[in-house]
Amino acid sequence: MSIQKPKGTQDLLPGVVEKWQYIEEKARDVCRRFNYKEIRTPIFENTELFQRGVGETTDIVEKEMYTFPDKGDRNMTLRPEGTAGVVRAYVENKLYGEPDITKLYYIGPMFRYEQPQAGRYRQFHQFGIEAIGSVDPSLDAEVIAMGYLFYKELGLQGVKVEINSVGNPSCRAVYREALQTFFAPVKDKLCKDCQSRYDRNPMRILDCKVDTQYGAGAPSILDFLDEECSTHFAKVQRHLTDMGIEYVINPRMVRGLDYYTHTAFEYKAAGIGAIDTISGGGRYNGLVGTIGGSALDQPGVGFGLGLERVLLVLEAQGVQVPGVRPLDVYLIGMGETAENEVARLLFALRSGGLKAEKDYLSRKMKAQMKSADRFAAKFTVIVGEDELSRGTAMVKTMATGEQEEIELSRLVEALKAKLAP
Amino acid sequence: MSIQKPKGTQDLLPGVVEKWQYIEEKARDVCRRFNYKEIRTPIFENTELFQRGVGETTDIVEKEMYTFPDKGDRNMTLRPEGTAGVVRAYVENKLYGEPDITKLYYIGPMFRYEQPQAGRYRQFHQFGIEAIGSVDPSLDAEVIAMGYLFYKELGLQGVKVEINSVGNPSCRAVYREALQTFFAPVKDKLCKDCQSRYDRNPMRILDCKVDTQYGAGAPSILDFLDEECSTHFAKVQRHLTDMGIEYVINPRMVRGLDYYTHTAFEYKAAGIGAIDTISGGGRYNGLVGTIGGSALDQPGVGFGLGLERVLLVLEAQGVQVPGVRPLDVYLIGMGETAENEVARLLFALRSGGLKAEKDYLSRKMKAQMKSADRFAAKFTVIVGEDELSRGTAMVKTMATGEQEEIELSRLVEALKAKLAP
Repeated sequence: MSIQKPKGTQDLLPGVVEKWQYIEEKARDVCRRFNYKEIRTPIFENTELFQRGVGETTDIVEKEMYTFPDKGDRNMTLRPEGTAGVVRAYVENKLYGEPDITKLYYIGPMFRYEQPQAGRYRQFHQFGIEAIGSVDPSLDAEVIAMGYLFYKELGLQGVKVEINSVGNPSCRAVYREALQTFFAPVKDKLCKDCQSRYDRNPMRILDCKVDTQYGAGAPSILDFLDEECSTHFAKVQRHLTDMGIEYVINPRMVRGLDYYTHTAFEYKAAGIGAIDTISGGGRYNGLVGTIGGSALDQPGVGFGLGLERVLLVLEAQGVQVPGVRPLDVYLIGMGETAENEVARLLFALRSGGLKAEKDYLSRKMKAQMKSADRFAAKFTVIVGEDELSRGTAMVKTMATGEQEEIELSRLVEALKAKLAP
Repeated sequence: MSIQKPKGTQDLLPGVVEKWQYIEEKARDVCRRFNYKEIRTPIFENTELFQRGVGETTDIVEKEMYTFPDKGDRNMTLRPEGTAGVVRAYVENKLYGEPDITKLYYIGPMFRYEQPQAGRYRQFHQFGIEAIGSVDPSLDAEVIAMGYLFYKELGLQGVKVEINSVGNPSCRAVYREALQTFFAPVKDKLCKDCQSRYDRNPMRILDCKVDTQYGAGAPSILDFLDEECSTHFAKVQRHLTDMGIEYVINPRMVRGLDYYTHTAFEYKAAGIGAIDTISGGGRYNGLVGTIGGSALDQPGVGFGLGLERVLLVLEAQGVQVPGVRPLDVYLIGMGETAENEVARLLFALRSGGLKAEKDYLSRKMKAQMKSADRFAAKFTVIVGEDELSRGTAMVKTMATGEQEEIELSRLVEALKAKLAP
């Protein structure tokens, strides 16, 4: 029996991979304009990094990581998300020593052992950014705006931004108690997960997908923000309004990760069923200290956008994205001498920058013409024994059917001229 | 203590990552011209794939793989090379059913547990191509030419191509016996590795780096090629000559993988010390059958080029590659109202396609001007309370020092016009 790809993974083949290239090029272009530079961290890291940086009690760390000992018996884990590795690299490479703040982006595979379903894979891909070193609320707004622009320029329809403030540790502690008081009378009726959330992180009960009725009338975090947090949140809103980005405040929005402070945000899009959140992010003012030691504490803000999710929405909304680009030239040779000349010409055309192809299966003229059609070739060049004896080739413009005999010695330049815009 | 990156891995940071982007863009551009399309296969595969596709007795499979059970107790391995996964995907996705041959490329991380040293990492990166479905010798020549052009266009100096034919299984069996006969008298004097190679694969003795003297006078594979193999090899040479690619025949060249048939080739470059081979590839007419079953046997040819190696040579030869691109505009606001306006303008500039930045640290004017210099900004835009009251901003062209007051309402268009080539 032949070997299959691992469960929950994908082969991205020609025809689909062009969509990925398009999405990634857009991500890189947005990052260029916003002055974010790429960082590439290893695919696996010491397991401890994620225990510390993602949180020991999260589903990711408790249930979903690909963890294994390497041949030196070190405990390694395939990265389940991008932020921890970037923050580790920020600390290890002393990027905090630079005079400007650090603005980084990453694009790459992440790994979580989850039950595969539509749009959810065990190897999935994220485009993320991390801006580290500033508490300026305009930076929160910039990060939110950047993801919004990325989706918008890709052609996603009806993208909405929801924002919230999850406060700082001190106002959150007060809110947490208020929530526990509120939920105490119904604690036994909550779902099993929420009963455990009641002690660990009662804010997540607001996010419960099982029993939504118990949260009605719960106190709002926004009534518990201290002055620093209120001011910060008001400024973020002011900037978003100035930028013309529509948002709604959702005081019940709680992100799955515990390290967020102040701003939390999510993007939603129409057309992908009930769960319309496509991704999100937030500010994490304590995370660098958690990973690098409190002496190195630096505030941060970022997002992580799932690329499988982007593709799902693009498809659900019927957005057209560029496919395989057409061929410039298809070369056909008839007879062995001509075939040698075709191989030579082909390399000359490609060296000259043209996208060119020929047959490799000794097929008949007619089959080769079909192949030229499949590749949507703009020109077909036929080198027969007759033309060869005259030192020429027959050039056919596929759109018009027009034919022209051109000297081999100036063929590359002639075709480049015809193709120039 | 803070957490470090795993031994043998790298963080690719801004300043270096641009070199990687440049190399990868070149790889993609060469592939576009030669009509190779990208494929992305999973980072890990079922271990059996590499046992079958790379070979149970190779160093890679015996010693160097990152193998681990997943949470479903399936035996997984981080891919140690790219060809096996691509061939698995070719078979599983029935790409052999397409009317044209299959021409694929990949760029991505690979993993081998080796002793780290200069230019050798446990996570390393390869650019590879696989052309499957044709025995045409012009395809071998195309693959060789493509790697050559890739290196040449990157600016590598003194790149040389060495080629050999390792024959087909039947003529290689005869050669193998001749080699065993030749080495029999000195078998006990050979290094330990070569003594084991004597039975398993005596051709690799020719490649021994320990005791090179015993190979002198050994029979040449080229004297054992049958007619099919000789003809194929002669045609490959003919095409390379026609294309103007200089090559030398090295009848002792044996690639590390056992699956090669007919053409084997290596690229060499000056300036990186004694071991000057930078990469290679070859034809593998039996591999698809080994992975997919003999009924699906399809000939293939490809290469796998190590990108760490490319960087090493570029640096050793002092080749200049593009670095971080300069900023178009740096925006400076003085006072809170102006800072709000700066955040708005910044988003407008970036939405309009410009690379723009501002300060996020409430720094003084002078420190912000220094920041603009560090980013090599082409223009600095200053929004003070005075300008703001007039609805204008001061635009400074950094190259000339020239200043000009421009209305805010037409600032984006004005700057775009100034930046247009």
